[in-house]
Amino acid sequence: MFNTKYYQLGTAPSVIRKLFAYGLEQAKIVGEENVYDYSLGNPSIPSPAKVNQSIHKIVDDVEPLKLHGYSMAPGFDDARAAVAESLSRRFDMDLNAGNLFFTCGAAPAFVAVCKALAALDNSEIIAIAPFFPEYRVFVEESGAIFKVAPADKENFQIDIDGVSAILSSRTQAVIINSPNNPSGAVYTEETLRELAGLLRAKSKEYGHQIYIISDEPYRELVYGDARVPFVPHIYENSIICYSFSKSLSIPGERIGYVCIPDRCADAQALYAAVAGASRAIGHVCSPTLMQRVIQECADEMPDLEAYDQNRRLIYSALTKMGYECVRPDGAFYMFVKAPNGDANRFSEKAMKDFNLLVVPGEGFGCPDYFRLSYCVDHEMIKRSLPAFQAMIDAYK
Amino acid sequence: MFNTKYYQLGTAPSVIRKLFAYGLEQAKIVGEENVYDYSLGNPSIPSPAKVNQSIHKIVDDVEPLKLHGYSMAPGFDDARAAVAESLSRRFDMDLNAGNLFFTCGAAPAFVAVCKALAALDNSEIIAIAPFFPEYRVFVEESGAIFKVAPADKENFQIDIDGVSAILSSRTQAVIINSPNNPSGAVYTEETLRELAGLLRAKSKEYGHQIYIISDEPYRELVYGDARVPFVPHIYENSIICYSFSKSLSIPGERIGYVCIPDRCADAQALYAAVAGASRAIGHVCSPTLMQRVIQECADEMPDLEAYDQNRRLIYSALTKMGYECVRPDGAFYMFVKAPNGDANRFSEKAMKDFNLLVVPGEGFGCPDYFRLSYCVDHEMIKRSLPAFQAMIDAYK
Repeated sequence: MFNTKYYQLGTAPSVIRKLFAYGLEQAKIVGEENVYDYSLGNPSIPSPAKVNQSIHKIVDDVEPLKLHGYSMAPGFDDARAAVAESLSRRFDMDLNAGNLFFTCGAAPAFVAVCKALAALDNSEIIAIAPFFPEYRVFVEESGAIFKVAPADKENFQIDIDGVSAILSSRTQAVIINSPNNPSGAVYTEETLRELAGLLRAKSKEYGHQIYIISDEPYRELVYGDARVPFVPHIYENSIICYSFSKSLSIPGERIGYVCIPDRCADAQALYAAVAGASRAIGHVCSPTLMQRVIQECADEMPDLEAYDQNRRLIYSALTKMGYECVRPDGAFYMFVKAPNGDANRFSEKAMKDFNLLVVPGEGFGCPDYFRLSYCVDHEMIKRSLPAFQAMIDAYK
Repeated sequence: MFNTKYYQLGTAPSVIRKLFAYGLEQAKIVGEENVYDYSLGNPSIPSPAKVNQSIHKIVDDVEPLKLHGYSMAPGFDDARAAVAESLSRRFDMDLNAGNLFFTCGAAPAFVAVCKALAALDNSEIIAIAPFFPEYRVFVEESGAIFKVAPADKENFQIDIDGVSAILSSRTQAVIINSPNNPSGAVYTEETLRELAGLLRAKSKEYGHQIYIISDEPYRELVYGDARVPFVPHIYENSIICYSFSKSLSIPGERIGYVCIPDRCADAQALYAAVAGASRAIGHVCSPTLMQRVIQECADEMPDLEAYDQNRRLIYSALTKMGYECVRPDGAFYMFVKAPNGDANRFSEKAMKDFNLLVVPGEGFGCPDYFRLSYCVDHEMIKRSLPAFQAMIDAYK
């Protein structure tokens, strides 16, 4: 006997993995240069040089017994203080080590926050379409009910009325993710202020706080004139989940954090509940070598030029061909409307006819869109453009 | 509102942390050399040299974009194959990469296995006293009921009748941990054969398999003539949770695995359920730099001489004074009977009167014993002996 719920999670077919595997197979047949793989959100710019320099230095300098030893569960004080100081300076906050809990990436941070907030039987946590599909898994693991607010397809900001319509007295939190995976949208300050106003009013009405869980792995990936507002400035009851995966191009190294600013309601109790939930899911500490690397690299920013070149090329080329999409201002994704509104069929046809691999939007809550991850080789984008042209022509 | 269960877990007073903090405070007052801290199970021998050499080499040699990128959730094929090959050779098994699922240490491995096995409402998972206290937290997180079989205080092997008495048709697994934290006992082949016989008979009676969850972070820490039998040889339905924390002295780096041999009933389905449970608690992959280090160091063994010297000194000195304890054959712990059977009071008095920090056994399921972690400086043990003498004299 085994747990069938987890068995199903462990065997669920992954569209992205299927596309990726298909691409690898086809590359053997038609040549790597004739496969156009936009499936994976794997950073394609190398880490800042200081990351590897820090690893060498730390391994050489830190006393052997301390180097790989445990830290306390929230992380080394010095490493957390360095991140708190960087955040405070860059975002005009007053954070300290005690506001941060280091985790093995944003995913377990998010799981712990959901578990900490799932206070009632049938607590509800809301995501806004389009959303990162694993949110559903993580929220349901916490015991809360996962509800989805409809997308604002005009510009992938937030459909405030749509959120309002599904809030209830059991709503514990609303998840936001800006810059957004999969749309690349950056929520404006105006959008966030509207959401904050709604949540304040509803918190008052229901007699308990509704939190924002702000999932921010792409916070530092923003282009042109766009700016990413720091969410706790706009809504006091905001909890941040962060990962260094994208900003430092170290997704495999598993380091991120939960940040609960003091101004958040029940901040200390929530921090304790996050620590307790982390403990229950087997968190001991985040990787200690990487904690020390983060301490050194808290101010390092990604060089976004390569992503930005990709973004401008793919956006201008596809819109010229007649594809509909909102210009992505952040992250490294673009969310494109399927010409006839059926992205599953578009993705299937693009794969089979052109070795063009795009992710259909069903899992993101928008089945009429497909996602392009443009963290790829610039030349691949150029080579892929005739395939995009042929695809849209096929629908005319 | 927040989850009170996790809040309590996050604020639960830790006896070990309290002792450790007291020690740090006292060191400022009486001098570090006059505090005898046996509280923490933190490795005190440095990592094999190859660990740091591998880090330097990998950072220099691996292509920047691959170096810190994601692996698939179970881990790199090559790294898992290297560990499978090492295990197969050392323990005469026929394992391959597909039997291993890399995790961020033994703790999330254990959580995922419990979740995968918690199939029924009210599934039961059994630990055998004395046991690592976090088992209770992890089992309860899975939704299963945590039951404890009484200790065999003669020699800290397994009280088979005691286990038999608490098995039921809802028992999904029995946890074993050999070499044992806190007793240092190594279960003999005879002990394990008896347990296997019991579980086979009961599995037949109940019409479903009862698994062994073998938690083996101390597998490579064994002294003198003692040998650690490889559990899957003795009981077919064994699932291993392993960590490299103790064998390579890298507890902060968070890397371990679940191993499900092919001979285990429902092996593939269980593997999928472990993968699904890991996904649900936010596992993406284990730290990729460390995966590559493990690939290089799969055959590295700890140099146990320092631990063994400590073990011989503390065991012979304490037994000569009249303390009762079973000779520890593995790990780096010794479990000693409190002279009057009240280890809480013994620990309190030792701390206050002598700055001698020992962990009372209540949390381990044996309130009349205290644990010594002898992964400490050898000279500290020598300096501490008069305190142990004075303590036992005080009870005469």
